[in-house]
Amino acid sequence: MAQNRTQSDHDAVSELTTGRLSVYLRCLAHLESAGQHTVSSAELAERFHLNSAQIRKDLAYFGEFGTRGVGYNVSRLKEHLVRELGIDRNRNVVIAGAGNLGMALADYRGFNDNGFQIAALVDVDPAKIGRMSRSGIPVLALTELPRIVGERRVEIGIIAVPAGAAQDVYAAFVAAGVTAILNFAPAQLRAHEHVKIKSVDLRINLELLSFYLKGVEDDTA
Amino acid sequence: MAQNRTQSDHDAVSELTTGRLSVYLRCLAHLESAGQHTVSSAELAERFHLNSAQIRKDLAYFGEFGTRGVGYNVSRLKEHLVRELGIDRNRNVVIAGAGNLGMALADYRGFNDNGFQIAALVDVDPAKIGRMSRSGIPVLALTELPRIVGERRVEIGIIAVPAGAAQDVYAAFVAAGVTAILNFAPAQLRAHEHVKIKSVDLRINLELLSFYLKGVEDDTA
Repeated sequence: MAQNRTQSDHDAVSELTTGRLSVYLRCLAHLESAGQHTVSSAELAERFHLNSAQIRKDLAYFGEFGTRGVGYNVSRLKEHLVRELGIDRNRNVVIAGAGNLGMALADYRGFNDNGFQIAALVDVDPAKIGRMSRSGIPVLALTELPRIVGERRVEIGIIAVPAGAAQDVYAAFVAAGVTAILNFAPAQLRAHEHVKIKSVDLRINLELLSFYLKGVEDDTA
Repeated sequence: MAQNRTQSDHDAVSELTTGRLSVYLRCLAHLESAGQHTVSSAELAERFHLNSAQIRKDLAYFGEFGTRGVGYNVSRLKEHLVRELGIDRNRNVVIAGAGNLGMALADYRGFNDNGFQIAALVDVDPAKIGRMSRSGIPVLALTELPRIVGERRVEIGIIAVPAGAAQDVYAAFVAAGVTAILNFAPAQLRAHEHVKIKSVDLRINLELLSFYLKGVEDDTA
């Protein structure tokens, strides 16, 4: 079944679904490390505050139906999700911008293991070029981007520069052949066809906490 | 209607719904700044790649039904969402950890405006205490946390310390009276009742891009 899906099917899988696959993967890794061999959708939902009908629907879409009365095989399902997410092989990453954010991302757990490898940071500031992040990622000149992308087969570019420089850096990534961009700059990028952009807006997390605090206030008002 | 909802109703609104309210808010701010006065759910869905039925359902839950043939009033709906998210007043924030991540967050756009104000960074490293972030947020000693939280009525704590220090910092926030925590440390925190924790996992964004890249590969294989 999985083999018969086409690129347009793949495109139709929303970011929300992909995000849920990532969440399921973390839950399964947790269960696997605790030595659990099988899990039902109901138990997954209960333990990790998820929706069991949604879990069954999402997994069935990817060809996983579980066994009635037994549930899913934890390790097999985990490996399946790793393959579906395309992290069963290494993807090389370059971070543009070696300021606080770029340096933090270079050393961020999960950005440089299990499917992702940060080849380099790049920057235009001569004071930063030649340095290294704490974990040893080198800071190279932005002008070296085409060479790095070619030699290291870099697929993902991370934009961690000020908003005013984001569009130029985006253009440099695209010109070098990078086809997937993670954008942390608060800038609306004019996108090229065939290049996927995912913009991260960390403020949404604070708004979620504010919504929680407001609920408490309304209750005690 | 909104007044009759209870705290348990409020709790039942999932993080996903809250996240969508934040997304709608950004879309409406964009339309408002472009001078647009009304918008239909269909147009919102079309322009911002959302689901129109989901939009109507989410907004109806918060008492907004729009006008048939006209749609929603952009400014009125935006103000309504600002109030629902509880960002129509200032909430003070402290960031624990003045390393690259904490410094980046202190200067991150959206973390120190429109409803949020960063009172201080705190750290245990004498070399960092007394410094300031680029935007002028001071780094104070962690031991000063109770005083800062009391004097500035801090409601939100951000954990940007290494995983090994996260639980202690969490306990310090809770002891000082902070009731909402944004956690960037890759650590599973033992939570207190009546304290809301939102953990941020930036790797999910990379997995989403990997899923996209895999779709392209499958298509060209």
